[in-house]
Amino acid sequence: MAEKVAEKSVDISPIQQFLYCGTPKAWLDHAVEELETLLIDHAHCEKKAAATAVKLMFRYPERLDLLKKLSQLIREEVLHFEQVLEFIEQQGIKYRAIKPSRYAASLHQYVAKDEPQRFIDGLIIGGIIEARSCERFHALVPYLKDSHPELAKYYRFLLKSESRHFMDYIDLAKQYAGSDIDERLDFFLQKEQELIESPDPLFRFHSGVPV
Amino acid sequence: MAEKVAEKSVDISPIQQFLYCGTPKAWLDHAVEELETLLIDHAHCEKKAAATAVKLMFRYPERLDLLKKLSQLIREEVLHFEQVLEFIEQQGIKYRAIKPSRYAASLHQYVAKDEPQRFIDGLIIGGIIEARSCERFHALVPYLKDSHPELAKYYRFLLKSESRHFMDYIDLAKQYAGSDIDERLDFFLQKEQELIESPDPLFRFHSGVPV
Repeated sequence: MAEKVAEKSVDISPIQQFLYCGTPKAWLDHAVEELETLLIDHAHCEKKAAATAVKLMFRYPERLDLLKKLSQLIREEVLHFEQVLEFIEQQGIKYRAIKPSRYAASLHQYVAKDEPQRFIDGLIIGGIIEARSCERFHALVPYLKDSHPELAKYYRFLLKSESRHFMDYIDLAKQYAGSDIDERLDFFLQKEQELIESPDPLFRFHSGVPV
Repeated sequence: MAEKVAEKSVDISPIQQFLYCGTPKAWLDHAVEELETLLIDHAHCEKKAAATAVKLMFRYPERLDLLKKLSQLIREEVLHFEQVLEFIEQQGIKYRAIKPSRYAASLHQYVAKDEPQRFIDGLIIGGIIEARSCERFHALVPYLKDSHPELAKYYRFLLKSESRHFMDYIDLAKQYAGSDIDERLDFFLQKEQELIESPDPLFRFHSGVPV
């Protein structure tokens, strides 16, 4: 019973159904061998997520509901950033600037040039990135729980807020689009699947199959 | 005795000594008449402060102490943003985009073109803006406490965190400068005094003397 409750609290099936593929096993096997890079890149991603949400706040400065959602999201992302930094220090890892993954930039190259589609695309990509992060945290837990129980526990904790962020972004995209976003969502989810399932020489939190 | 403790908790004398002038009475008299604009601009300022801190995070991506300070600061600024939005809604005011004050842009025009001075100047201006905000919250309290006791109480509460932000920015500027910042600080404080004491046709949270 207790196990069922615990399972329910980290139910990510809506996210697994949303994304077009799971994280390849080859990436997970590699991740535990490159935990230092994983953590440093994770910290960068949290910082980047906050910066992206800040940028979106300035795009529609009169939409109170949007501003409030983004504001809460920023608070959570920077808090996670601080928490990941703490892990990095605890592990004796030297935090440093590293080259970002191809992932976010590759998705952003397809963003529409004109508003309002540009804004909607930004929200869709935000949602997809949050969903993938969530799926990867979940997939990493069994790989980390023996060697790094604290990190496994933390990633399990992150699932909850990241899954809310995913829904927030997708809900906002639907709301601001005023029409169906299914086609656009399908387009970006296909591109995302390609990035996750194709060979990627640079190992990062959102990278493809290690080569 | 209780009064003394209360006074001590909002002691802003270091800030009053830091700035080259107090807020002119004419601005305060005007502010209570234009509370709607004051609140909307205040919300924009909190949002802008968060955005500025995010930008600074990307400038020196390897300095852990700087990143942690900025990250905490961002969390507080966006929380204040949400709180001011709540006040705005409670007062039945329609939140909208408004033209920003000349204040921050005027100070930023003197920022050095080259690093590391550009970064130091940014921190100094950050500190000055936080200090002025703090001084204005404090000066507004007696003007608001009868007509808007809740807002007066909130501004008194904000003093504490804003005065910490002021010190954080100035400490970081000193730390990263590696040498004396007195001359540069004096330059920006003089410019700031001019902006506060000269006539300003556009009433805002950081505007000059209303005309």
